[in-house]
Amino acid sequence: MAEKSVFRYTVEPESVDFTSRASVSSMFNMILHAAGKDAHRRGFGIDVLAERNFGWVLSRMCLELDRMPAEYEEFTLHTWIGGYNRLISTRNFTLTDKEGNEFGRAVSQWCMLDFDTRMPLDMNTLAKVHDGTIVDAPSPCDAPKRIGTIGSEPIAERKVAYSDIDFNRHMNTMRYIDFAFDTLPIEVPEKLQAMRMDMNFMKEARYGDSLILACEENDAQYNFEFRNGAGEALCRMTLDIK
Amino acid sequence: MAEKSVFRYTVEPESVDFTSRASVSSMFNMILHAAGKDAHRRGFGIDVLAERNFGWVLSRMCLELDRMPAEYEEFTLHTWIGGYNRLISTRNFTLTDKEGNEFGRAVSQWCMLDFDTRMPLDMNTLAKVHDGTIVDAPSPCDAPKRIGTIGSEPIAERKVAYSDIDFNRHMNTMRYIDFAFDTLPIEVPEKLQAMRMDMNFMKEARYGDSLILACEENDAQYNFEFRNGAGEALCRMTLDIK
Repeated sequence: MAEKSVFRYTVEPESVDFTSRASVSSMFNMILHAAGKDAHRRGFGIDVLAERNFGWVLSRMCLELDRMPAEYEEFTLHTWIGGYNRLISTRNFTLTDKEGNEFGRAVSQWCMLDFDTRMPLDMNTLAKVHDGTIVDAPSPCDAPKRIGTIGSEPIAERKVAYSDIDFNRHMNTMRYIDFAFDTLPIEVPEKLQAMRMDMNFMKEARYGDSLILACEENDAQYNFEFRNGAGEALCRMTLDIK
Repeated sequence: MAEKSVFRYTVEPESVDFTSRASVSSMFNMILHAAGKDAHRRGFGIDVLAERNFGWVLSRMCLELDRMPAEYEEFTLHTWIGGYNRLISTRNFTLTDKEGNEFGRAVSQWCMLDFDTRMPLDMNTLAKVHDGTIVDAPSPCDAPKRIGTIGSEPIAERKVAYSDIDFNRHMNTMRYIDFAFDTLPIEVPEKLQAMRMDMNFMKEARYGDSLILACEENDAQYNFEFRNGAGEALCRMTLDIK
């Protein structure tokens, strides 16, 4: 049986927002960094898959934070693959502080994409990538939820630019979060204490595509939908303020 | 006599652009990370200055890269304070690859700002922050140049948003670079082999400020000027493609 992987992070000055606490997008950045690094170390990273022109693509993800870590705070991140089915591999995360108290948790669901066809691959045909890496421990929180259509009118629009795209040539996860947060009243990140964010990725946004953002607010929940110029949903996101 | 500080970096997947090489803004990010960390370790970091409501503010900077490092490439960064005068402290950097070959170098000039008055402080009144940290080695390249007015018409405009601002509540250096690169033809970062970038910071851009970008192109040189809504220059930048 495999063991959980352990990473240590420090909230560096470049990861904090104007409140001197880690921003939500930088927390996603550290968590996704650990995911990439763990896959790389265990031999099924994007570098190995790229040899066959395959790659991991994030399908859904959720993150719960009981508080926002402060600048220079150190924390420990545990990550493990909890299992997989035909289309989805599930990677879990917990975040614990110096005293060993868990203050955050995340669940991510990944597809393996064939970049030649841009279609998902059947995970079973490549099941050996996971051999010996599954950790028999439950996810630390509810799985990322399916987010339904958000019908409201656009509140912001721009083109996907050079700095938005990653090695996959598609819009980077952190940039979706930044774009959404940039439309919120500044008091939301300023007063943020605890939160849960769910993300659903439906369709890639590529360089030059239009990115149209709609948002609905209900009490302490913000629901975002990113659409392309054809009106198709690219990504949906809910932010629950606790 | 103090010694140069040494940092080791790996070009992580989140630092590369669609060419699978480090982006210019992520190279600045790593270099400025080292600057902050070195100041922190030596006891004159932003955390210590913040106790008196002072802070380091970047005034000018240049970066030369002979090539763009590839994903997962490791490099060594040396950094040292070369000296200071009444208003400016100079920090130098060299970047060397695994074989010990220098492939990049940078010079940065910093002011110490009093956040109560938003005015620069006389470095001599705080000269002891530098005591024993000056390294008697010349800057590895020409100092950042003074960039004159760029008179051309705006090519892009937006507001300074939440994700653009740092703990100082002003526009982050990397975001200026991203914004400028986002307006370039995509072939510029795609074909980029070697470059020098100079930056002059004249005035802070703060949350909600208008950010108006003008650009002039001459052969292999792009000159950028960021202005606020009142037409004042905030930051100028030149990119020389080698």
